[in-house]
Amino acid sequence: MNIGIVGLGLIGGSIGLKLQSLNHIVYGITNNTLNESKAKERKLANFISNDFEILKNCSIIILALPIKELLNPPIDLIQAIPSNAILTDVGSVKLPVVKIWEKIHPLFIGSHPMAGNERQGVNAGDIELFDNAKWVITKTNKTDQESLTVLSKLFNSMGCNVHIESPIIHDQAVALISHLPIYLASCLIETANDESNNSLLNLSRKLASTGFSDTSRVGGGNPSLGLDLAKNNTTNILNSIKKFKTKICEIEHIIENNNWDSLEEKLENNKISRNYFIE
Amino acid sequence: MNIGIVGLGLIGGSIGLKLQSLNHIVYGITNNTLNESKAKERKLANFISNDFEILKNCSIIILALPIKELLNPPIDLIQAIPSNAILTDVGSVKLPVVKIWEKIHPLFIGSHPMAGNERQGVNAGDIELFDNAKWVITKTNKTDQESLTVLSKLFNSMGCNVHIESPIIHDQAVALISHLPIYLASCLIETANDESNNSLLNLSRKLASTGFSDTSRVGGGNPSLGLDLAKNNTTNILNSIKKFKTKICEIEHIIENNNWDSLEEKLENNKISRNYFIE
Repeated sequence: MNIGIVGLGLIGGSIGLKLQSLNHIVYGITNNTLNESKAKERKLANFISNDFEILKNCSIIILALPIKELLNPPIDLIQAIPSNAILTDVGSVKLPVVKIWEKIHPLFIGSHPMAGNERQGVNAGDIELFDNAKWVITKTNKTDQESLTVLSKLFNSMGCNVHIESPIIHDQAVALISHLPIYLASCLIETANDESNNSLLNLSRKLASTGFSDTSRVGGGNPSLGLDLAKNNTTNILNSIKKFKTKICEIEHIIENNNWDSLEEKLENNKISRNYFIE
Repeated sequence: MNIGIVGLGLIGGSIGLKLQSLNHIVYGITNNTLNESKAKERKLANFISNDFEILKNCSIIILALPIKELLNPPIDLIQAIPSNAILTDVGSVKLPVVKIWEKIHPLFIGSHPMAGNERQGVNAGDIELFDNAKWVITKTNKTDQESLTVLSKLFNSMGCNVHIESPIIHDQAVALISHLPIYLASCLIETANDESNNSLLNLSRKLASTGFSDTSRVGGGNPSLGLDLAKNNTTNILNSIKKFKTKICEIEHIIENNNWDSLEEKLENNKISRNYFIE
């Protein structure tokens, strides 16, 4: 198939490499000539241009743009998309994206591959990024069933496990298991670091080990990601934070009252529950 | 040197293996004949017995017992410790242990090797456990300086970086960087799992990935450890939880008010601060 990818950063570039290896013809769009030449060097697509015009050849187009740009798409892009092309995106928040793009293009279906690493830009694309990844496709009452089937098969062929859900449930789920951890990790770092007793601060910094490192890891990620998520998944993230606060207040109350049986039961139950989330 | 180890579980057994490799003569105490024979099979010490009597040969004795037992030591153990032996422990909370043992034995100095893994018991000992680990020795106004020097040299010779601090500062530091993460991780799991909407719960469980896995990892640890820490480092843990709650309320307030500049600044600052804790 002829497949267009708008944006050849980590996700777009990785899709480009993978789709070429599956013998599709890939048309990639970059945002400036420097990135165009870098992307050509790395062979992220068969055809690479800064001109949306090359999308006219494509039967499937994947918008691999930051959420901010997905929510404010340039008119040139909109006009270049063939009316019979199946269109999707890869943004990590779905409801606001789907709301805008379903109006723009009837064959739009939102999607979100759960894959990534710390790298970004045209140098980041990695053909193995999607091996065994989960890829959510969000279905609404406007979703074209045939297009949904085509996208599912495409993502499966790339080595991904496809999950179909509504944009609302998607955004609530990622708020809980992906976005909330970022703000918790960030606050954990702040808690340990905001200490006026120098001996304590120095010893904490020296002793911090794998437990602190793992629990705080996502608090060390790109701040603009945490910002974008909060801007675009605000209500679900606030609900997750409120729910978490209830839980931490409960455990605080249990410790304050020396309710050791309740504490052990809670830690035991949560240890068991973790297995439902971790493969 | 002749060195006694009381308890040959993960920490005690690892110490036994390491000290033998450094040509010390190690006397190990187990708590029953089954563990005695397993420990002998694994050669965790040169001499292994259930009888505290063998400690009479030792110039250094390391109590590698759970905190509960450290706080309620059997009289036979106390009576078997030679009055001129240097005595230490490896418990992860120091003030209550030091308070008791300084009264029992004038040459007692509390210590805490920051090393561990998920394994426990006489089968867990691992000669490499302490490679490059941090080992805190807690000093008080009763600490014998000569004994402190001997212990520091011994732990250094085992490949550890020694840090000397007061028991109070130690307990406050580990509350922040080691104990708090356990309760946060546990509450994160509970927040994601405590969901009556089945579609949401199922999708959350399916989509949970490395971010959730890392942030929640220490919530999947041994519940009796989380319980023991809360029992024996109660005030410091409660202070850490209260401090964390202030931070999470701040970030909630920032998001509620769409203070995006403040959010970005906070995430950026905490990302930078993390580097002070992680090598």
